[in-house]
Amino acid sequence: MSIRIEVGQEVLRGNREWAARNRSILHRNNVWTLNMMSSPGAGKTSILERVIPLLKEQMNVVVIEGDVMTTLDAERIRALGVQSVQINTQGACHLDARMIHDVIVQLPLQEIDLLLIENVGNLVCPADFALGEDMRIAVLSVTEGEDKVEKYPYVFQQADAILLNKIDLLPYLPFRVPKFLEEVHHANPYAPIFHVSAATGEGIAVWNDWLIQKGKQHQRSAESD
Amino acid sequence: MSIRIEVGQEVLRGNREWAARNRSILHRNNVWTLNMMSSPGAGKTSILERVIPLLKEQMNVVVIEGDVMTTLDAERIRALGVQSVQINTQGACHLDARMIHDVIVQLPLQEIDLLLIENVGNLVCPADFALGEDMRIAVLSVTEGEDKVEKYPYVFQQADAILLNKIDLLPYLPFRVPKFLEEVHHANPYAPIFHVSAATGEGIAVWNDWLIQKGKQHQRSAESD
Repeated sequence: MSIRIEVGQEVLRGNREWAARNRSILHRNNVWTLNMMSSPGAGKTSILERVIPLLKEQMNVVVIEGDVMTTLDAERIRALGVQSVQINTQGACHLDARMIHDVIVQLPLQEIDLLLIENVGNLVCPADFALGEDMRIAVLSVTEGEDKVEKYPYVFQQADAILLNKIDLLPYLPFRVPKFLEEVHHANPYAPIFHVSAATGEGIAVWNDWLIQKGKQHQRSAESD
Repeated sequence: MSIRIEVGQEVLRGNREWAARNRSILHRNNVWTLNMMSSPGAGKTSILERVIPLLKEQMNVVVIEGDVMTTLDAERIRALGVQSVQINTQGACHLDARMIHDVIVQLPLQEIDLLLIENVGNLVCPADFALGEDMRIAVLSVTEGEDKVEKYPYVFQQADAILLNKIDLLPYLPFRVPKFLEEVHHANPYAPIFHVSAATGEGIAVWNDWLIQKGKQHQRSAESD
């Protein structure tokens, strides 16, 4: 097994170098970048469909969609009137920094305020691969069960914010919100938690306000550099 | 990127050799082996909690639980009165055949009829790693959305049976069952599809009947070898 770990570390080192390059390019252009991670079907794209119409009134938003296959998600984002680029990983279980690099060098970065990256639906692999982002957003849906933070800790430990989605389904599920909050507090005591429903729109405005505020902070710190 | 693909193929070749060894050991002992795969939280363990009490009346069942972290699932299975072994992958996004080998050589295989392997919750990585199993079972929950077969095709293409779980939540979701069936038919026209609810128990008896029947077929073909 040791050879796999060594190979893995070499791949991770290479990825970190590409991530640092991305970070430098994005910062030079004052682009604020978020990396969204969750299981398949937790609702990342649906959440973006709710929040982008609010965000785009204040920021120029571009979305990179990561999927194993299909361009379904990029098409859903494009229908909102914002630019989106689909990356198909052709089997890989996560985006990596090189894939992101190949996209951002073709984007009009000086015109972009916020780059949203929706990672491949996976609670394990994306956590290991920095993309050059400023923040990581983890999404869990209540239908997945309250034990997932404990069972798949990495994505949640590294998150700068955690979204609990599909709260409209809570009446039909045994999901205990206090137990979930306890697990999150244990894994990551500082990340704010937003309770949202992409289906009904509940909680999306609150998350949007937080994004706008964080985006302005980023803008100010970029200007003072 | 090419170096990663070559390394991947070497790892996969090594895995195939371990899987062939497992298969030989399991067949020699007339153990019928299933590998269950799904997203995190699709309900694999909950389905096992429903079906094992039925299965164990006719078969001697042992479960191997694969998780990144925790022994929560193995404890849930043990509470049913069947032996379970937890494998923690410590970060890896799938079980591999070597991990299974290290477990099965310690099991009383001659006393086991059915070995159920619950893989790490992940719709991408487990598809590439044969474990030595006789059949693969893919689980999708209706809360994940009907587009997942198209977006994460590998697990579904290779499945010998597909379980659609959480059907008790269909009244509260926009999930279109006919669209899902169409996608499955496109990806994998021959796999039977079972509509189940681990929450209510609906459909579990039908899946149990199929398992008993397939288990008997396997037993007969093993005896005639």
